Amino acid sequence: MTNVLLLGAGFTADERARLTETFDSVSAAQAEDVAKIDASTRAGIKAVAFKGHMPLGAAIMDQLAGLGVIANFGVGYDAIDVTAASARGIKVTNTPDVLNDDVADLAVAMLLAQSRNMIVGDARARTGLWAKEGELPLNRKASGSSVGIVGLGRIGREIADRLAAFKMDIHYSSRSEKQTPGWTYHSDVVSLASAVDFLVIALVGGAETEKHVSAEAIAALGPRGVVVNISRGTTVDEAALLDALESGAIAGAGLDVFMNEPNIDPRFAALDNVVLQPHQGSGTVETRTAMAVLQHDNIAAFLAGQDLLTPVN
Amino acid sequence: MTNVLLLGAGFTADERARLTETFDSVSAAQAEDVAKIDASTRAGIKAVAFKGHMPLGAAIMDQLAGLGVIANFGVGYDAIDVTAASARGIKVTNTPDVLNDDVADLAVAMLLAQSRNMIVGDARARTGLWAKEGELPLNRKASGSSVGIVGLGRIGREIADRLAAFKMDIHYSSRSEKQTPGWTYHSDVVSLASAVDFLVIALVGGAETEKHVSAEAIAALGPRGVVVNISRGTTVDEAALLDALESGAIAGAGLDVFMNEPNIDPRFAALDNVVLQPHQGSGTVETRTAMAVLQHDNIAAFLAGQDLLTPVN
Repeated sequence: MTNVLLLGAGFTADERARLTETFDSVSAAQAEDVAKIDASTRAGIKAVAFKGHMPLGAAIMDQLAGLGVIANFGVGYDAIDVTAASARGIKVTNTPDVLNDDVADLAVAMLLAQSRNMIVGDARARTGLWAKEGELPLNRKASGSSVGIVGLGRIGREIADRLAAFKMDIHYSSRSEKQTPGWTYHSDVVSLASAVDFLVIALVGGAETEKHVSAEAIAALGPRGVVVNISRGTTVDEAALLDALESGAIAGAGLDVFMNEPNIDPRFAALDNVVLQPHQGSGTVETRTAMAVLQHDNIAAFLAGQDLLTPVN
Repeated sequence: MTNVLLLGAGFTADERARLTETFDSVSAAQAEDVAKIDASTRAGIKAVAFKGHMPLGAAIMDQLAGLGVIANFGVGYDAIDVTAASARGIKVTNTPDVLNDDVADLAVAMLLAQSRNMIVGDARARTGLWAKEGELPLNRKASGSSVGIVGLGRIGREIADRLAAFKMDIHYSSRSEKQTPGWTYHSDVVSLASAVDFLVIALVGGAETEKHVSAEAIAALGPRGVVVNISRGTTVDEAALLDALESGAIAGAGLDVFMNEPNIDPRFAALDNVVLQPHQGSGTVETRTAMAVLQHDNIAAFLAGQDLLTPVN
């Protein structure tokens, strides 16, 4: 009997196959497609395999009377209304840790690429402009500079561990001070931003962290400041960020996440002081496979009545 | 009396000013301009401040009968015929160490950018292709992979120290085994290439290392192999590298150095599996300033009859 719903348009063929080969399943690409599943099938759904960023709230949950688990593909589950899920006795799982390395790699790579103007550099070498106009204008040293990690969770820690090898002076902000190798703790993000050149945002998404990196924090970063964001577009005041990037109030940014992805603000396209990436933090074959396996295994555990591997509620 | 010759077309205004404000100097942009300096001025030249990659050999040295030191701007002095200099009692200095961090940063950045397809990623986010065609195809995890450093000198060591923070399995080749934290030594580059996915070339340039990364080494790297070169274009068999990149015999490359810079082989421009940079390894304000100071100070030491700071012969 069909008991798993694949919800979301973003599953790859491999990810879909991993689920459909094990489970008796039905699919809904969009939220409104759930209602189109016939009522008896819907009533049998015990698990949702969710991938994407569409809001998954009470309206969908209430169409699935037998739902017991929502297994999210990704560590960030801010699209899911966990309060509504908990109120209905629905468990939520995510895919933590398996993507930490990739996300941290991309954060460091964007910091270095912005600092060394590598997007412009590639074009200069590739198009022959190097021969015509000479060297790239001098850019900026990354090693030995100061960095602030906003949110020293598991991903933030991986980023800091890498940047320590670049001899950076590491500062961080978080709800409470952590055990670190002598890194400098700031209880608020404005203090953090005023102390460093590079500000790397590694927060969880959701309402609590909305615009946590505020206009005030961006202003505190100053004209040598660079914002790197691999968390969620919501965690930074994007309008203030765009203003600061356009005016030179800060030096630049490296951004993997945006408001309204993939329809990002066209103002970003005109900036020559940013490195942009299409939300590919976990986008490697190795890591997406590990995420798919973990999503699958959470559902399998639930259906077998076993403990969930990575519950969030 | 004029006793310093600024030789090379690449001095920036700041670099030129640093030299001309201290020293009584004359300039020659190209090799053939040396002969155009009047004979009595030429006879008074005691020091050459050299910047660039034009060959500086016996023909130039023999036009400067009073020359005592050639102070190179850069760590790599393969453009200077040191044997000819030594035979004439001319000392050569370079600018080591002050650029190690920047060059290592760029090596790591190119490795990550190639692995994560960041040049294509930036264009996808920037042009709106993300909204039209969706996510970037999955790429490849960098952390935890295996890397081989060809030449574990001071720059190679800085690269390895950084990549260790990415949990990479570190191998290296060099003339002799070094003290390392348990990294794997290979006495030859083909053995090294066959053991790793990423091959990072950190050799000195010059005749001894010409095509050290041979066609055989490139073949040994295999279809998941990526070549990163921040040394000199001469250190790799570039024709074999281009063939391998075009055929898929290796996966890709990140290259800051080429044969015939800046007129690089147009075959590079057509490749979508490479990250190209216009020889900007040391190209930051901070590091180029430190290099200019060191070049200046070597000349000042020589003219004052003091020990050279960073002699190479």
